[in-house]
Amino acid sequence: MSNFITMTTDFGTRDSFAACMKGIILKTSPQAQIVDITHEIAPQDIWEAAFTLRESCVHFPKGTIHLAVVDPGVGSGRRPIIVVTESYYFVGPDNGLFSLVYRDAERLRVHNITAAHYFLPSPGATFHGRDVFAPVAAWLTKGIPSGNFGEEITDYVKLNVPVPKRTDAGLDGHVVHADRFGNLITNITMNDLQSLVPAGGQLGQVTVLIGGRQIPGLKKFYAEAKPGEPGTIINSSGYLEIFVFRQNARAGLTVKRGDPVRVAVRPA
Amino acid sequence: MSNFITMTTDFGTRDSFAACMKGIILKTSPQAQIVDITHEIAPQDIWEAAFTLRESCVHFPKGTIHLAVVDPGVGSGRRPIIVVTESYYFVGPDNGLFSLVYRDAERLRVHNITAAHYFLPSPGATFHGRDVFAPVAAWLTKGIPSGNFGEEITDYVKLNVPVPKRTDAGLDGHVVHADRFGNLITNITMNDLQSLVPAGGQLGQVTVLIGGRQIPGLKKFYAEAKPGEPGTIINSSGYLEIFVFRQNARAGLTVKRGDPVRVAVRPA
Amino acid sequence: MSNFITMTTDFGTRDSFAACMKGIILKTSPQAQIVDITHEIAPQDIWEAAFTLRESCVHFPKGTIHLAVVDPGVGSGRRPIIVVTESYYFVGPDNGLFSLVYRDAERLRVHNITAAHYFLPSPGATFHGRDVFAPVAAWLTKGIPSGNFGEEITDYVKLNVPVPKRTDAGLDGHVVHADRFGNLITNITMNDLQSLVPAGGQLGQVTVLIGGRQIPGLKKFYAEAKPGEPGTIINSSGYLEIFVFRQNARAGLTVKRGDPVRVAVRPA
Repeated sequence: MSNFITMTTDFGTRDSFAACMKGIILKTSPQAQIVDITHEIAPQDIWEAAFTLRESCVHFPKGTIHLAVVDPGVGSGRRPIIVVTESYYFVGPDNGLFSLVYRDAERLRVHNITAAHYFLPSPGATFHGRDVFAPVAAWLTKGIPSGNFGEEITDYVKLNVPVPKRTDAGLDGHVVHADRFGNLITNITMNDLQSLVPAGGQLGQVTVLIGGRQIPGLKKFYAEAKPGEPGTIINSSGYLEIFVFRQNARAGLTVKRGDPVRVAVRPA
Repeated sequence: MSNFITMTTDFGTRDSFAACMKGIILKTSPQAQIVDITHEIAPQDIWEAAFTLRESCVHFPKGTIHLAVVDPGVGSGRRPIIVVTESYYFVGPDNGLFSLVYRDAERLRVHNITAAHYFLPSPGATFHGRDVFAPVAAWLTKGIPSGNFGEEITDYVKLNVPVPKRTDAGLDGHVVHADRFGNLITNITMNDLQSLVPAGGQLGQVTVLIGGRQIPGLKKFYAEAKPGEPGTIINSSGYLEIFVFRQNARAGLTVKRGDPVRVAVRPA
Repeated sequence: MSNFITMTTDFGTRDSFAACMKGIILKTSPQAQIVDITHEIAPQDIWEAAFTLRESCVHFPKGTIHLAVVDPGVGSGRRPIIVVTESYYFVGPDNGLFSLVYRDAERLRVHNITAAHYFLPSPGATFHGRDVFAPVAAWLTKGIPSGNFGEEITDYVKLNVPVPKRTDAGLDGHVVHADRFGNLITNITMNDLQSLVPAGGQLGQVTVLIGGRQIPGLKKFYAEAKPGEPGTIINSSGYLEIFVFRQNARAGLTVKRGDPVRVAVRPA
């Protein structure tokens, strides 16, 4: 068992939603150690939550309970679930939020949470973060087996996760996130790039086409570019990232999430 | 005694004000467990702090110390106080911040904090959050009785809390808060609505008038409305709330805090 | 030893960067107690981080490890360092971030972190916050001596910290920070003001010139001014601050960081 509970929500930090959840967790399990991943997911943006959780969840101690609530369907038929992998627990709504967990897990079990005696008394229909998910996460820290919360299910909801496509021109992927610095993260991995380059070739032979711009080569670190110069890099999660050194690539290249990125290989 | 201290301030999280308070708390009481309710109260907005504290404080473990600092009168004559209820301690300035605590508490005692030996040495006149309130909250976790900090007072400051009024047309209330999603929370409770509906009638017979719009009926959960459709609901705190499904009602209906809301009853 | 680790970064709280660092810290040292100073430093603004750290670090318990990452040169040659003073540890990049620590410390030792077995396996070149600084801070809580992380150095990077200058007209200083409330903090101390006033004179004789305005006198607390009236005060850190009561001085006086402030003394 672990006392660590992380939180990923779209509740913001100005309202008291996240704090209400923390209060309930600590009332149920005073020894719980709560760590915010973020409460700044764009309202109801399930994909952004899935992405942010994937980036961060693996860095936490084994057994950590990752509580995630981005829940536009709260109160309707959508199911509350617990996802159990080889390393972690995930608690939240069954709306695709855990799609990247499903993709990356080695072992996977999903339970539909139905055991209402673990919920707050008379849970309402608008705030399951407080009434259902927070108490369930807290009870998990107290060693209640995940099976006690409800039956295993196999028809959990998965988002359609975009995958880069090989073409004659090279590789077509997408921007999946723009971070605080305006860096543009794609769904193209280091392995994808390596499979593009002919045997004996160099990763530096790639050219990235994005927002009407061609960016040749691949930098090793940001400061290799000059201030204001666009560059590409394999980022700290292993994905191709487009940046403008000391500036904001999202604004400067007028690119947003979902926009296409093409990687081509120049002759050596 | 409890080691839990919550914080509600208008200090933001970009400056170090809130962190300075946390440092002082942990220096005085290293076993304190600090939980942020929010530091994003609009600058000097005492009402917003009172509302946010009321929404969240009851969900914390018994004995929790709720530290709240929105303090435009810092350094002037306004008194520092400790409020003791049947469940919690509240520490902050005597400027009305705890008005909803006074309204809702079953048992209530208010102390004027004067025992300067609990303060930081030579407290200044501009940051009592750090110099007075944080150390007092920390000492409370160490079991110092509230009476040791100063005399009981009965003339503490109360904000004028708006109450809905029955009229021939129905019930006239106000918007008291707009949350991150743009949902508009009113001061009208479920009980208020029930008293409006004739015996044998249904809550669904109510119509809400707000911002020149008429919204008939009462939904059970947000997703009952269609995207872009306005709806009303009893929210997770028991208050009437106006929303636009998957959109921002505050922006879409051009309504702000303080604006009137009328509830009328249609014939069954 | 201390279990307290503070964090000061420009990572924001929407992305998962800060959370990744917390995960790594807790994986390495589950008993660590992490306190956010801020993650809202303006992107790559080393000075703002230095200022914010100076304002807050001294309020934490002795032995606290202050982890600070504003790191535009990540991956390039800039060195990772541990700074040891009479009271605290500081961990971060050698880019001037700790310039005010160097200025204020009584005892000072700086180590260049080179012992890669304390880093994450295969650290990348874009996120040393996660791969280098977080694990080093965590190992410090476990009692590893600072000398084990690398050799002492003396040529660490110092920012040019502006100092007020005496002139015939009085004292010329600068605005070094504008806080959330729009209050303008200068680099002029109480001692500087006292040295300006002739023997037997009063601090109240000073006049502050800023943004084309003259503000006579020195208030003791904000509420001494009328709403909308500009005033000056010695703030909670001992520095001259310009405010507009219940308004935003930065916006109202159209002044920004780096702008000049002059203090003159009126005849008694």
